[in-house]
Amino acid sequence: MRKQMTPQEFRQHGHAVIDWVARYMENVEKFPVTPTAVPGEIADSLPELAPEAGEDFAALLADLDRVVMPGITHWQSPNWFAYFPANVSGPSILAELVSAGLGQQGMLWSTSPAATEIEAKVLDWLVDLMDLPQDWKSGGPGGGVIQMSASDATHAALVVARHLRREQAAVEDMVVYVSDQAHSSIEKGCTVAAIGHCRKIKVDQYYAMDPVDLENSIKADKSKGLLPIAVVSAIGTTATTAVDPLESIADISARHSLWHHVDAAYAGTAMICPEFRRYQPDLERVDSYTFNPHKWMMVNFDCNVLWVGNRKPLIDTMSILPPYLRNKATESGAVLDYRDWHVPLGRRFRALKLWWVLRYYGASGLRAMVRDHVALAGEFANRINQDDRFELFAPHPFGLVCFGRVEGNEATRKLADDLNASGRVAVTPSRINDQWFIRVSVGQTHTRSEHIEKLWQLIEQLSI
Amino acid sequence: MRKQMTPQEFRQHGHAVIDWVARYMENVEKFPVTPTAVPGEIADSLPELAPEAGEDFAALLADLDRVVMPGITHWQSPNWFAYFPANVSGPSILAELVSAGLGQQGMLWSTSPAATEIEAKVLDWLVDLMDLPQDWKSGGPGGGVIQMSASDATHAALVVARHLRREQAAVEDMVVYVSDQAHSSIEKGCTVAAIGHCRKIKVDQYYAMDPVDLENSIKADKSKGLLPIAVVSAIGTTATTAVDPLESIADISARHSLWHHVDAAYAGTAMICPEFRRYQPDLERVDSYTFNPHKWMMVNFDCNVLWVGNRKPLIDTMSILPPYLRNKATESGAVLDYRDWHVPLGRRFRALKLWWVLRYYGASGLRAMVRDHVALAGEFANRINQDDRFELFAPHPFGLVCFGRVEGNEATRKLADDLNASGRVAVTPSRINDQWFIRVSVGQTHTRSEHIEKLWQLIEQLSI
Repeated sequence: MRKQMTPQEFRQHGHAVIDWVARYMENVEKFPVTPTAVPGEIADSLPELAPEAGEDFAALLADLDRVVMPGITHWQSPNWFAYFPANVSGPSILAELVSAGLGQQGMLWSTSPAATEIEAKVLDWLVDLMDLPQDWKSGGPGGGVIQMSASDATHAALVVARHLRREQAAVEDMVVYVSDQAHSSIEKGCTVAAIGHCRKIKVDQYYAMDPVDLENSIKADKSKGLLPIAVVSAIGTTATTAVDPLESIADISARHSLWHHVDAAYAGTAMICPEFRRYQPDLERVDSYTFNPHKWMMVNFDCNVLWVGNRKPLIDTMSILPPYLRNKATESGAVLDYRDWHVPLGRRFRALKLWWVLRYYGASGLRAMVRDHVALAGEFANRINQDDRFELFAPHPFGLVCFGRVEGNEATRKLADDLNASGRVAVTPSRINDQWFIRVSVGQTHTRSEHIEKLWQLIEQLSI
Repeated sequence: MRKQMTPQEFRQHGHAVIDWVARYMENVEKFPVTPTAVPGEIADSLPELAPEAGEDFAALLADLDRVVMPGITHWQSPNWFAYFPANVSGPSILAELVSAGLGQQGMLWSTSPAATEIEAKVLDWLVDLMDLPQDWKSGGPGGGVIQMSASDATHAALVVARHLRREQAAVEDMVVYVSDQAHSSIEKGCTVAAIGHCRKIKVDQYYAMDPVDLENSIKADKSKGLLPIAVVSAIGTTATTAVDPLESIADISARHSLWHHVDAAYAGTAMICPEFRRYQPDLERVDSYTFNPHKWMMVNFDCNVLWVGNRKPLIDTMSILPPYLRNKATESGAVLDYRDWHVPLGRRFRALKLWWVLRYYGASGLRAMVRDHVALAGEFANRINQDDRFELFAPHPFGLVCFGRVEGNEATRKLADDLNASGRVAVTPSRINDQWFIRVSVGQTHTRSEHIEKLWQLIEQLSI
């Protein structure tokens, strides 16, 4: 009889793991936010070969503390202000556990009706919660799908845009437009999709796309015989959360028959609060929209959502049906088969964690979280504003504050390095053109006023 | 104070969820293997809108039984013989829980040194366990990376192959070669990557690629001015687990400077046993190789591995480094940043479950599982062989047996439908050209001799 883990053993070990995770939650603030491990240190603590004989579960659990923890970057610390948040929550973590236990493979409706239908329904819920166009619901011409990351979703949108124009030009002559502040995933998506040109459009003083430069660039490209196929607007750029002017871009997009994709990877979550929706007007004229519940909605990575206003071109591009995937439900036309909505075939039951988070916190709980974070960011920005040593670098419409030392780049970079070296917080130094600044992203599940206070004290202390 | 889940509440709810999953493991055989839900049934049992107020955790847990279970296809049942396995295990499920709790975002070494270094080390372990070329280890010119699915890995390989030849031809004139039995992901990968042609090569009587037809097709394409760029060999095709002749294909690939990618998505796991390695000779001449621990290695989806013999072209194709991702570790050159190895930027700590499974079962435990499944498949094939009513459709080198009724297609399809309608097993009907057959894939974690016996009795009973 070969080694198994019986349900009874699973129960026993599972309780120990739950306790370990609960202790991690209790102690997460006690670790240095970024680990002290040097390159190779974790790898060197592992044996050169896999063990021949199986080990006790207790040994695995012990190595979490011995091997793993020294190499963990504490994204879940309330003192984590780096990058964008990737905030998790109890119900989401437990939903991942259930999803793993059920071991669903939801490539087709028939291979997991629950995974498919709960995904469609919960994404419909989000359409209402975020006041997105009703056409994007699963009962309409459009629809939503969970993908792994905004990079994957944007790449998929670009592939569809390219596919729709494949008779009109060689891919090398196709052009996609983004602002010079757009996320790197769009340029990467163009490269991966073999699209010839990813044109970077100028931004205004607030780092939002300049529609005049967009129009001029399109005309210039057309005059060169190139084929503009798509424009990607950002609601919340990565560097500063700038918001591109969607209405003007939609006008230009309509005039030149471009696919209009919106990247709201981080800021999309804010749209559950009506007061932020002024940043996303005119979505009826958008072809696709992506945001990441795994950033700021307390849902574990991975959980990206892509909506399309019309699902037919997406499915036409992505669908291939070999005999071994044929089945009656698919042939009835009465179901969605999400494998036709993205590159991968296999897919796990990711909707469960989104469903549980929406239900556990409720719409009101999620709105309260967003508003707490944005208010804390506002408080922090006020401190910066009121202190002569610092200056804000950009507007802060959501939970990200960008600032620097008035002395300039060297002092700003030194402050960022000192903050991170302290182990007490994590921030991200970044730059636009030649100017460096520090990104402070307020969005961790348990970040409260006291953490902002401590961050401010540390900044003051390091800026003398 | 907005709603939270405290560590103490997480502990309490977590124990309840562990018990729920343990009960599912105990009872999985009691459910009909495929659910009786009709399209729309699960969706209709959910409210039209997300709740405004948060709900109790107990309500979420109760709805697992009320809403979710009626729509679950029981991939984890020992009576699951459909598609390929997606077998999970206790240590893998618990590793997913830990990974979710740690909430790592391992896009860069510095954003999770543990996730990065454990991934590299564990994939190095697999190189030795599967007797792959030593050059594929992280210390060599190559390396391995966990991706979401074989579709993603194959797509990435095709993109690299295309990128390397971008100066030599338009993508529309590039050609990729596969057998007509290759997985649909390769044709889809070509479409997504804008590669002009995906040429289907004839197979021999055992459904393995015919190298003579490959050579002829390449020559014919070259004479038309097209540019052959890659060939994909299958070790274990999807329909019948046929094995393409790697040595001949490597010869042809070398002669025509093709990228040689190997798709061992399902059968790769078998290579931990020396007796199966005769199916993968000559790997030193392969450029990339992919297999899915999430199919047959008791590791939860998603966990695909892609190895490349030389990582430079992969990284050259996929790497874009904006200012906000710059960091000292990356600039030192001493670390791997896995974001440069695939399309998505974000990545979770998936190596943990692979590490835990390898350690808990040990190499000997995993080999015992593979050998058990292959022996059970052999027993089942013997029954088929010894009964005049049935015939084997193809060789069964691994755990998949393909068979049909001697009366022909109609009887075969009826048997497959009757088996699935019984709710006692799940099998996959498929066809090659005009001939239908039934795929019986033996590979679930807890499938034992008694389950094969019951399957056989059911087949006999339905074939009178």
